[in-house]
Amino acid sequence: MADTQTRRRSRSGGGAARRAERTAVSVETARYIQRNIPDFEILTEEALELIEANAETVLEEIGVAFVNNPAALDRWRAAGADVTGERVRLPKGLARTLCATAPSTYTQHARNPDRSVEIGGRNLVLAPVYGPPFVHDAAGGRRYATMADFEKFVKLGYMSKWLHHSGGTICEPTDIPVNKRHLDMLKAHMTLSDKPFMGSVTEASRAQDSVEMCEILFGKDFVQNNTVMTSLTNINSPMTFDDVMMGALEVYARNNQACIISPFIVGGAMAPVSVAGTLTQVLAEVMAGIAYSQLIRPGAPVIFGAFVTSIDMNSGAPTFGTPEASQITYGAGQLARRLGLPFRSAGSFNGSKLPDAQAAYETANSLNMGLLSGVNFMLHACGWLEGGLVSSFEKFVMDADQLGALHKMAQGVAMDEDAQAMAAIAEVGPGGHYLGCAHTQANFKSAFWRAEVFDFKPYETWSEEGARDTVALATERVQYLIDNYRQPPLDPAIDDALTEYVAKKKASMPDSFM
Amino acid sequence: MADTQTRRRSRSGGGAARRAERTAVSVETARYIQRNIPDFEILTEEALELIEANAETVLEEIGVAFVNNPAALDRWRAAGADVTGERVRLPKGLARTLCATAPSTYTQHARNPDRSVEIGGRNLVLAPVYGPPFVHDAAGGRRYATMADFEKFVKLGYMSKWLHHSGGTICEPTDIPVNKRHLDMLKAHMTLSDKPFMGSVTEASRAQDSVEMCEILFGKDFVQNNTVMTSLTNINSPMTFDDVMMGALEVYARNNQACIISPFIVGGAMAPVSVAGTLTQVLAEVMAGIAYSQLIRPGAPVIFGAFVTSIDMNSGAPTFGTPEASQITYGAGQLARRLGLPFRSAGSFNGSKLPDAQAAYETANSLNMGLLSGVNFMLHACGWLEGGLVSSFEKFVMDADQLGALHKMAQGVAMDEDAQAMAAIAEVGPGGHYLGCAHTQANFKSAFWRAEVFDFKPYETWSEEGARDTVALATERVQYLIDNYRQPPLDPAIDDALTEYVAKKKASMPDSFM
Repeated sequence: MADTQTRRRSRSGGGAARRAERTAVSVETARYIQRNIPDFEILTEEALELIEANAETVLEEIGVAFVNNPAALDRWRAAGADVTGERVRLPKGLARTLCATAPSTYTQHARNPDRSVEIGGRNLVLAPVYGPPFVHDAAGGRRYATMADFEKFVKLGYMSKWLHHSGGTICEPTDIPVNKRHLDMLKAHMTLSDKPFMGSVTEASRAQDSVEMCEILFGKDFVQNNTVMTSLTNINSPMTFDDVMMGALEVYARNNQACIISPFIVGGAMAPVSVAGTLTQVLAEVMAGIAYSQLIRPGAPVIFGAFVTSIDMNSGAPTFGTPEASQITYGAGQLARRLGLPFRSAGSFNGSKLPDAQAAYETANSLNMGLLSGVNFMLHACGWLEGGLVSSFEKFVMDADQLGALHKMAQGVAMDEDAQAMAAIAEVGPGGHYLGCAHTQANFKSAFWRAEVFDFKPYETWSEEGARDTVALATERVQYLIDNYRQPPLDPAIDDALTEYVAKKKASMPDSFM
Repeated sequence: MADTQTRRRSRSGGGAARRAERTAVSVETARYIQRNIPDFEILTEEALELIEANAETVLEEIGVAFVNNPAALDRWRAAGADVTGERVRLPKGLARTLCATAPSTYTQHARNPDRSVEIGGRNLVLAPVYGPPFVHDAAGGRRYATMADFEKFVKLGYMSKWLHHSGGTICEPTDIPVNKRHLDMLKAHMTLSDKPFMGSVTEASRAQDSVEMCEILFGKDFVQNNTVMTSLTNINSPMTFDDVMMGALEVYARNNQACIISPFIVGGAMAPVSVAGTLTQVLAEVMAGIAYSQLIRPGAPVIFGAFVTSIDMNSGAPTFGTPEASQITYGAGQLARRLGLPFRSAGSFNGSKLPDAQAAYETANSLNMGLLSGVNFMLHACGWLEGGLVSSFEKFVMDADQLGALHKMAQGVAMDEDAQAMAAIAEVGPGGHYLGCAHTQANFKSAFWRAEVFDFKPYETWSEEGARDTVALATERVQYLIDNYRQPPLDPAIDDALTEYVAKKKASMPDSFM
């Protein structure tokens, strides 16, 4: 396909290299999605203006809290905010004015330049699930995640054609001390994949480590002049910016590295139960956070984030793939575009404990909505299970396959002479069939997107092959991708330097599991 | 909820009736969807005009075939078409002019007036799967459908809150002779449910039987003055109108009963492999079919149908829930709106053999697209499995539950003062939580749509309850609905008259299984 970049494993050496080339599995990564379809705009102009005005009122009258962060309060004071205790009230217009220096698009560089992504505009970049402490597969069930699981996920991400980004904490490697696991995770992204990745945010010092490791990988000058990480800083909704997340944001912004600034909202708990109320709070929070990033360094790249779920009022459990979350995301996309900022939302969200029909309905609801709402960076695009508690191997490849449908959908409808197919309609005529006609022969290879995990065989064949469900097919796909994984080449000097950095850092402090 | 109509089983008698009332299961049916959200418009004005011009060219230069139907050819000749053999070529503008007499909306009456539906405009009416020869459930696997299965599906449809329509051939009762099964199916819809339903199209005489049974149910005058059936007449794409389907259409149009006029397209086989080419053919076919219906009786209610799938070019199998089918449906919706006609498309489409993740991804893709493409009548909205070969009991209730999400999504975003929730945001403030605030307490019951089949319990509870997947939960739901089914009341005289009509008709001809 024209929009994919093919890479084959390459090895030094003569005949062996050529033999390897001939037998290699093709590792393709599709170019990030460039939409050629409109966005779905659920809110009217009047509704948008009302929400924007309400958000300004919230910032001015209620304000936001910057906790344990006296330097932040000083910055706000200097910028013209009204600071009382840890509460920061922003006069109307201040946040929006400060947001104006944030770029509308930015390039996140990958170590393989073919894998660099442009975030913002009409683009959509897809990254895997982030954060679960558990993993799940059909053979082993649900269990705490380990570093071996993490590395397996990085390999699956590298092998996934429709995934543009290696992500961040694809699962929490709980067998590594909390204060050291970011080093191993970063090294895995840097060495097992050549796609772009995310930095650590769990402490300012770990963000600094992330920057320093990137300086080894990309070179110090390159990192200072280019964005090589997009990291996730959550807001403690409602309207609280804690010192840990803000500490990481400060490090990244200062180093010209990108952050997603994202309210973390379970509707009815961290925001009002209404769509309009939630959008008001989301906008106020994001504007405050992005304004703050621009106080650190005007022009620092940032993303307007919105992580939104609803709540099951019977059990209090968060629910996913729901119509209210879709409405909020559509609206948030409109608000982000009006601010001229890249937008992050949606993903393979679901509340199921298994990669079953519930998981798939909810996921498909969210993926489709993410495409049509104008999302520019979709974290959690594959692998999410059980409300984000679990990274599922089977679901990772099932979802990653479905992401291909988003690519095709986003291409829009070709209207050139060949696509109009008038000659084919004339050739076939009433009562004929198109399977053999010239137009079909010329176009069939690229005409229809095809899922690779699903089964389209006749019932009898499928029965003879064991009557496998989607999970069984996905188990096989996981194994196929892992069996065919080959590490992308990396300068051994860089690899050694990363190893040395990680070893030194680890030796510099005792293990902590808190 | 405000948009639902509650019915409880009622019984004659005093204390017993009151006791029954108190213990009765509530049988709610939601009002048909009235969209308060925009449509997703994938095609530009230029693209739409080009497709419309191309469709006129197809009708004029290539034409359509009306097979074994000399009376139809006479009608076309009289209307100004160029008829050569069975080929009918329509001068540019003729089809569109004839389509203008078809109503943009019509009411299909149910025997329970609360269940009548308005088809067209901003509305969406949901009807179950149509046509499969097989049924499937977890306990019995895949097997030929029987009349007992059919009746069970009618009961499930009656008990499904989000389903507005009882449908037609929910499955083929293969244990009843082909020439008699329409009588039993109609009687089941008429007596086991009080929702609107579809008539038979497999022979003109069976369409006539359908009209006559409706005259018993509704009264002869009522049927002549009102629409009480919406039936499915497929076009044999490409561009062929066979005498069986047209025979049924003629009966229905003559009696002021509605037909869906629907190309049946597996892309690459019955239409070009391109989206624009398929849309051109679909528009030409539908305009010819609807024009013909208006030759029979100007003003006869009709629906612009589009049944579209793509094809797996490896195996030749039809594929569902694909991006190409979505693009075609979005475009067809735009074309239907420009013609001012009700639009039928989408459904719970999938190619899976099991109600598993594949089935759910593909179904959700199609359901979401159906809502946003402006579909007015969605046949196959629940229960479809294996490319339409199978009606699945579990999938019926899984899908029927998901239809609730479409209802909520379609309501759009409330922007009144309560929805803005400014008082709640002020009350809770930074770092607070919304669970106990006044706004949440006042609104939580209706704030979030909730799936009834899915599991939202904590992992531990779910494990203790048997770690059930969606299919197991759906099996339980099927049984619950069937156990709680109570037949809606019907005048015994009408019931007897229907029984007599069916018996007489059956006795009048030998069984045929062809």
